[in-house]
Amino acid sequence: MDSLMKRIGIQLPIIQAPMAGTSTPAMAAAVSNAGALGSIAVGAVDATAARAMIGAVRSGTSAPFNVNVFCHAPAKAEAARARDWLAALGHVFARYGAEPPGDLREIYASFVADEAMLALFLETRPPVVSFHFGLPSGETIGRLKAAGIVLFASATNLSEAEAAARAGVDAIVAQGYEAGGHRGVFDPRAPDSQLGVMALTRLLAGRIALPVIAAGGIMDGAGIAAVLDLGAQAAQLGTAFVGCPESSADQAYRDALFGPGAAMTEMTALISGRPARCLPNRFTALKDTELKGVAAPDYPIAYDAGKALAAAARAKGEGGFGAQWAGQGAPLARALPAAELVRALRDEMLSALGHRPVMAT
Amino acid sequence: MDSLMKRIGIQLPIIQAPMAGTSTPAMAAAVSNAGALGSIAVGAVDATAARAMIGAVRSGTSAPFNVNVFCHAPAKAEAARARDWLAALGHVFARYGAEPPGDLREIYASFVADEAMLALFLETRPPVVSFHFGLPSGETIGRLKAAGIVLFASATNLSEAEAAARAGVDAIVAQGYEAGGHRGVFDPRAPDSQLGVMALTRLLAGRIALPVIAAGGIMDGAGIAAVLDLGAQAAQLGTAFVGCPESSADQAYRDALFGPGAAMTEMTALISGRPARCLPNRFTALKDTELKGVAAPDYPIAYDAGKALAAAARAKGEGGFGAQWAGQGAPLARALPAAELVRALRDEMLSALGHRPVMAT
Repeated sequence: MDSLMKRIGIQLPIIQAPMAGTSTPAMAAAVSNAGALGSIAVGAVDATAARAMIGAVRSGTSAPFNVNVFCHAPAKAEAARARDWLAALGHVFARYGAEPPGDLREIYASFVADEAMLALFLETRPPVVSFHFGLPSGETIGRLKAAGIVLFASATNLSEAEAAARAGVDAIVAQGYEAGGHRGVFDPRAPDSQLGVMALTRLLAGRIALPVIAAGGIMDGAGIAAVLDLGAQAAQLGTAFVGCPESSADQAYRDALFGPGAAMTEMTALISGRPARCLPNRFTALKDTELKGVAAPDYPIAYDAGKALAAAARAKGEGGFGAQWAGQGAPLARALPAAELVRALRDEMLSALGHRPVMAT
Repeated sequence: MDSLMKRIGIQLPIIQAPMAGTSTPAMAAAVSNAGALGSIAVGAVDATAARAMIGAVRSGTSAPFNVNVFCHAPAKAEAARARDWLAALGHVFARYGAEPPGDLREIYASFVADEAMLALFLETRPPVVSFHFGLPSGETIGRLKAAGIVLFASATNLSEAEAAARAGVDAIVAQGYEAGGHRGVFDPRAPDSQLGVMALTRLLAGRIALPVIAAGGIMDGAGIAAVLDLGAQAAQLGTAFVGCPESSADQAYRDALFGPGAAMTEMTALISGRPARCLPNRFTALKDTELKGVAAPDYPIAYDAGKALAAAARAKGEGGFGAQWAGQGAPLARALPAAELVRALRDEMLSALGHRPVMAT
């Protein structure tokens, strides 16, 4: 099995997780310049905006970086479900003197149906492309690989990892239940084994003939050392980077991250229509009030309403309806600049590993 | 901070988890003789039976061992809830030509209300006593410590760990959400942060001035090395020992452990009245059928019904209603004799740690 670090050309077994709406090209460039792998997420933008983001990363670094896309099955629009959802949310909008949108749209195209994004990747050739929520077609994977792009896919269990391996990706991101943000399950309606990063990493490292990247609950170099012991070739950290100045998290999100709620993150599908781990806030609290027992529309249709509600509340000074994603390690978050954080992670990792040689040479 | 291994007098940072109904004195003795810490669980028996179990361990080993007790708040008997529960279960009993018990009893005394068990410990002085589901009174803790007994307490979050530290225990068992069997939450009706072992261990290692023992999803020496990197002083493994010949798991339990369901363990309160992680079986499946939406009586009142159902089904050849507890690492279970398993864990751990000195000297 190839060394993943060598294959990509990075010095440290550390990946800054792509976080749509929170990670930025400046963050990715700073991380990559520090010897780790920086990432941007373009799942929530179109190819034109993605082109600008890729250009911005490249203007900040000549080192490798990762571009993440969403590969969800396109949503099923169900009119009755959207209507019930908006009716339930209407009471919440009313608190902020606003009305819910008249109808809900599928606000993001899935990469599986986005020809323009594929063409952009084939043209601009980012060093790494990573898939979340599933896989694109075999043909798309073949074309990306032929363009020299290294491919990662998220998996939350063995069968998703096996599917990704069969499809020809180069590495598996083993996303534990601890992880912040959207859970990468391929089918959000299927039973979820909720595997923690410890069990999942160890299982995939033993059963999958591809490098494993462990993700979920890892906040420092000790956590990185731990997943390397488990057989991962690298660790992916998202929440650790949310507090960086290069993050686009707003003040309410940062306050929540560094507040007492960090100890009680929740998995919720109310904000976007797919399960995602979030800091407890006014939106997650709706599970016990206005949204109790109401079924959310499919991702990302529900997210159209969720974003509208966050904006309406924010306009009245209430920041607590944002998508304040965070993993279970949130109480260990730090507010360091991204490059400084990578250096700290490196030093802590080496200290935890007792200076065993783990860096690519 | 004292070294936990030195304090207890064990050679390996490995603890065989106490598992009421599954671990045995023979298992504990074999594990302790192999240099780890063996455990028995006496939460489901009275002081007379516990005396015999402690004697059986001592007849097999002169090495230290651990005796575990349940410290749940005594159950509230709610007649209506018990009646509804029995009515719902009646349909399941009927499938096996049986009837549910006429009423349900609180089948286990909590250690917090068991004077005979306390007297037994003060007399027999097991080297370690561990608490699950909460803590006994400060007076009890003081008497056990004065008798020279080292005390562990399970915690699933920072506030439980802080309470245990304030109460004067000697070490915290950081039980991740991955762990098999009963979740150690002090209050099963409070919101559960569901922290995985990675985040929980790292959090407690940084915030609690006591040795941390990591538990949940650890199945091999790589997992032990990982939690040592996270700052734990030892790892506690339960599911890893269920398949040992010294375990009292019946054949149906062993078949389930080594079957495909091992990848899909479930947290369920249906069997005992408290959340516990179980292999998917006929009992856990009742969540979608006869027990859908029915509230279980308090632990251990519900367990009275659960055990009766398991026995009724077993009498007709159906073993799938047992308490087949297992953690998320279940797919990595092995059927080695306990002493051989401890040796394998040791070798794997040293290999993962690159032969750093981690054994007590």
